[in-house]
Amino acid sequence: MKEEIKQQAAAILESDRLAVTRGITRIENEREGWDDLLSSLYPHTGKAYRIGVTGPPGAGKSTITQKLIGYYREKGKKVAVIAVDPTSPFTGGAILGDRVRMQSESMNEGVFIRSMATRGSLGGLNTKAQDVADLLDAAGFDIVIMETVGVGQSELDVANAADTTVVVLVPESGDSIQAMKSGLMEIADLFVMNKSDRDGADQAVSALKTILTMRITHAEGEWYPDVIRTVGTSGEGIDTLAERVEGHYQFMLQHNFFEPRRAHREKERVRELTEALLHRSFWTEKRNELLEEMVPRIVARDISPQQAARSLAADDITISS
Amino acid sequence: MKEEIKQQAAAILESDRLAVTRGITRIENEREGWDDLLSSLYPHTGKAYRIGVTGPPGAGKSTITQKLIGYYREKGKKVAVIAVDPTSPFTGGAILGDRVRMQSESMNEGVFIRSMATRGSLGGLNTKAQDVADLLDAAGFDIVIMETVGVGQSELDVANAADTTVVVLVPESGDSIQAMKSGLMEIADLFVMNKSDRDGADQAVSALKTILTMRITHAEGEWYPDVIRTVGTSGEGIDTLAERVEGHYQFMLQHNFFEPRRAHREKERVRELTEALLHRSFWTEKRNELLEEMVPRIVARDISPQQAARSLAADDITISS
Repeated sequence: MKEEIKQQAAAILESDRLAVTRGITRIENEREGWDDLLSSLYPHTGKAYRIGVTGPPGAGKSTITQKLIGYYREKGKKVAVIAVDPTSPFTGGAILGDRVRMQSESMNEGVFIRSMATRGSLGGLNTKAQDVADLLDAAGFDIVIMETVGVGQSELDVANAADTTVVVLVPESGDSIQAMKSGLMEIADLFVMNKSDRDGADQAVSALKTILTMRITHAEGEWYPDVIRTVGTSGEGIDTLAERVEGHYQFMLQHNFFEPRRAHREKERVRELTEALLHRSFWTEKRNELLEEMVPRIVARDISPQQAARSLAADDITISS
Repeated sequence: MKEEIKQQAAAILESDRLAVTRGITRIENEREGWDDLLSSLYPHTGKAYRIGVTGPPGAGKSTITQKLIGYYREKGKKVAVIAVDPTSPFTGGAILGDRVRMQSESMNEGVFIRSMATRGSLGGLNTKAQDVADLLDAAGFDIVIMETVGVGQSELDVANAADTTVVVLVPESGDSIQAMKSGLMEIADLFVMNKSDRDGADQAVSALKTILTMRITHAEGEWYPDVIRTVGTSGEGIDTLAERVEGHYQFMLQHNFFEPRRAHREKERVRELTEALLHRSFWTEKRNELLEEMVPRIVARDISPQQAARSLAADDITISS
């Protein structure tokens, strides 16, 4: 391993802030040695507790996250936040706005906030977020919050890569119904009904609870998701939320549920990493040229995209028309 | 090629409705012969005009699509719709609702509507949608509308795989600003301000136009996106929209802009198809077992995910710890 990487790893383990920032950039851009860096940090991971926060745009995830930061800081914990900003045209901007407001927090020692954009990297986003979480874990942060907008499967996967996944909903939008329809329930360890001082909060909460009882059989020795009412702006309910997160943590420990979760997570992650490596070695200059040569023939309908792909994958330079 | 596939292809070219439905299912599920089917249909594609319709949830895309169907039916055109329903928990449900309403249309001969779910297939969605569009093209549909919710990059790619891409916005939500922030402008050939009978429509339209002038230099011989006001429910503005789509078509023809667009599209598609084939041949039972064996060692932090991936990709059975 290069000396530079060794030194960067050592500095990160001493939670050198600059080294942490540069290390994350190295990982995000996959600059030389990024995987060696992660490999050398990996043995030092496993101490941080990872909390996923997801929900629809405008549910107040960033406010909840901010208040959670405050809660854990009071307890003397070091908190890092990975904010995944989807480039979805209809949510991106809003989130970035919250982010700016939140940056103020990271002036605070013991708090570290980093945004990750999803553009182009939807496939690998889940892996990258976990890589960054590993780095922050090794750097000695006690709590790593992974905040995403639940607009796409990949964002949900990120939240689901946490030890405890919190889904934030709001009364008005009937999100709870939508959430149930589309398998979000499977990833939620805790539900937060935010802005619960608004009209319709009671109905929304009881609607959500009804659907939960319909969908999840409350079996002995299995976790059953709570619904916590919060008012993010005032901080009402945040302590309860944090206590329930702790409660979920204790429950998972008691029942040894973390290990299977992590096993599944790491398996998918290795799968993604492996395929990324395969692509890199496959798309040689020669193969890219071959692809370029095929395109006009495809446009001319001389060969089909499927035939082109097959001969590329088979590394068969002669293309049967 | 198998006789069954030959027969299915022949029936599709005669626009046999049942064959079309079954062919699409074969492609979606990648059932045996799906790529041969596409290859044999491919030479017969290129006649259909492909219109992409995207925008935020609730902008009224389905209503616009329905009205466009009506418009083209009156002109005696055969219309097919590929509706990509993202599984995003906060949009999926609503779209499916629209879909149900829209199904009534497909009772009509000369109209064909098919939904595609994005769950799990985000990576390949773009390719799959193009495959289905090719089939419908070969089956003799004059117009293929690809409708998606612009919540993720992949959905935008689908819309962008069309000859003309229409972005539907609404006055209230300030979508236009968000759209601009996040590169949606690059894919929009035409903007529709739907529900433009509502308050704030004038401001929204002029705001959008202002941003357009700021972002796009109206160069000679380059396309400049129009903003068309519609009221989907009443059908107001739909004829204008359809005329502008035709106008964009004529413009692209004049300037030979379709070929480079298609070339780029096919290149990305072949890339995706090739990688899918690589994955299939790579993940042999043996390699999957190897991955399974590695997982406990990763969880135990004996090896890192990066090391595991590297040795899998290198097909190196002995893992250096």
